[in-house]
Amino acid sequence: MSSMLVVGSVAFDTLHMPSGSFEKVLGGSATYASLAASHFAPVRLVGVVGRDYPESAIQRFRDHGVDTGGLEVDNSGDTFHWEGRYSEDLSSRTSLRTDLNVFASFNPKIPQAFRDTPYVLLGNIHPALQLEVLRQVVKPKLVVADTMNFWIGGERAALVKTLAEVDLLVVNDEEARQLSGVNNLVNAARALMALGPRIIVIKKGEHGAVLFEGDKIFSAPAYPTGDVVDPTGAGDTFAGGMLGYLVSQDDLHNGTLRRAVVYGSALASFCVEGIGTDRLAAVERGEIAARYSAFRSLVHFASEEEAAR
Amino acid sequence: MSSMLVVGSVAFDTLHMPSGSFEKVLGGSATYASLAASHFAPVRLVGVVGRDYPESAIQRFRDHGVDTGGLEVDNSGDTFHWEGRYSEDLSSRTSLRTDLNVFASFNPKIPQAFRDTPYVLLGNIHPALQLEVLRQVVKPKLVVADTMNFWIGGERAALVKTLAEVDLLVVNDEEARQLSGVNNLVNAARALMALGPRIIVIKKGEHGAVLFEGDKIFSAPAYPTGDVVDPTGAGDTFAGGMLGYLVSQDDLHNGTLRRAVVYGSALASFCVEGIGTDRLAAVERGEIAARYSAFRSLVHFASEEEAAR
Repeated sequence: MSSMLVVGSVAFDTLHMPSGSFEKVLGGSATYASLAASHFAPVRLVGVVGRDYPESAIQRFRDHGVDTGGLEVDNSGDTFHWEGRYSEDLSSRTSLRTDLNVFASFNPKIPQAFRDTPYVLLGNIHPALQLEVLRQVVKPKLVVADTMNFWIGGERAALVKTLAEVDLLVVNDEEARQLSGVNNLVNAARALMALGPRIIVIKKGEHGAVLFEGDKIFSAPAYPTGDVVDPTGAGDTFAGGMLGYLVSQDDLHNGTLRRAVVYGSALASFCVEGIGTDRLAAVERGEIAARYSAFRSLVHFASEEEAAR
Repeated sequence: MSSMLVVGSVAFDTLHMPSGSFEKVLGGSATYASLAASHFAPVRLVGVVGRDYPESAIQRFRDHGVDTGGLEVDNSGDTFHWEGRYSEDLSSRTSLRTDLNVFASFNPKIPQAFRDTPYVLLGNIHPALQLEVLRQVVKPKLVVADTMNFWIGGERAALVKTLAEVDLLVVNDEEARQLSGVNNLVNAARALMALGPRIIVIKKGEHGAVLFEGDKIFSAPAYPTGDVVDPTGAGDTFAGGMLGYLVSQDDLHNGTLRRAVVYGSALASFCVEGIGTDRLAAVERGEIAARYSAFRSLVHFASEEEAAR
């Protein structure tokens, strides 16, 4: 089977949820994306952790088929730590503390054995570092990148340079608007394509996701659930699950891209049902298949001809 | 064919759009809903206009198969007038002026010939007036009601009384949250069902609409278009188009409800392409069918089995 590279943050999160507070939760964009993708395909992880990151947590990745050969342990400091508090209804959150620690000097080094990985997921890190990763890999089939408002606002030139080498950009609706300067999402997607990526996926949280490829548009809902426990990492899970499915199919036709968006949405819907990666990591193949089917029912309506019968 | 009753506001709008200013635009919730529904079914309109409302505008309804036998002309004053200014990107609007005029004393009187109409759409008017309408109709098959933040905040007791007699409530996401006091939309819909309506349709503007009936959920996207000219009346158009389709089928099975939501979305997508009701009124049968098909393509993805072939 083909394989994918995930480059991004590996962190400890402290989460203050309506249901209680949780410390030393395994987090970071690369953690969520790797575990999501691991349900579909072999994952090669590149990131950095500190002296406080236990071997058991690294082993947890391996247990999910994630190759941790690119996970650097920097003993000069502690692991990236983020602390946040969610509102009672989980609709918003406040960052209480961000300790970059060893992540501050993260400079991704792609191990020789990883350089020919055909699928690459550039997590939300400095765009110049994303470009550094692309300088180290050899002719990938597909480069997927995520980014955030911080880089769009502060490092636009570097980001634009990176985007020229990205095939699929996955951003949320606010980021799409900020980066393109266009409010209407259809026009925003067109403007983003002009920057390089031929495929744009816009994440809209509870409103689902929209895939743009050329003139083709695919709209996927979010899975409607009343059981949201912790939204942390849902976007990274979506991206990881989406790419993991593409890798498993080793195919990039529009129909495959559509199914990948649904699988990403399905994984994200499991992710939010547990604290941190608890539910995401434990979800079973049959549950994923059942949720994929639930997405079919969710959007199903008969054609005119079918209805007339 | 079966028929439907529409009760609501008939107005003149003054619209300040990025594309220019427009005066004496035919507007009001009942205007948009009637014209949308008229593409599918006979409509009976109940509302009030003032001495300044021209016969030609009334004739325009008739030309679309709308029975204006319940459209009262009150010569004591002018027609309800609303003036608003949209932001450059059309994402928000400001009310500049609201002259209720003859609408201030609107007390819907359902003509004898309309009282057995099987489908009833209660537009966004005072909930006590909505209930007055229900006191005048005889055993309707389906009562659909719209409402707004103004009544939810200021007339909750009257609204709750009305909702007990409503079968299908159509509200936007903010209204659903305000009325239920619940942020999560799935749980909000459940809470709204407990107030009476067995079917809840939540409109989410550019994010589409969600239909809840019992445990069944249907998610419809909005039609993705870069050509939005005037969002005024899109919600009323959605409700009118949705109910018009149900009337044309004279059926309330879940599959029919799903298709009705898509037809409502299709009509709303045409509505926003023109100023006021210009595009909505002019849209042709073939265009509606083509857009319905476009919705099919927009949400289509293969089943697991199909994908495996």
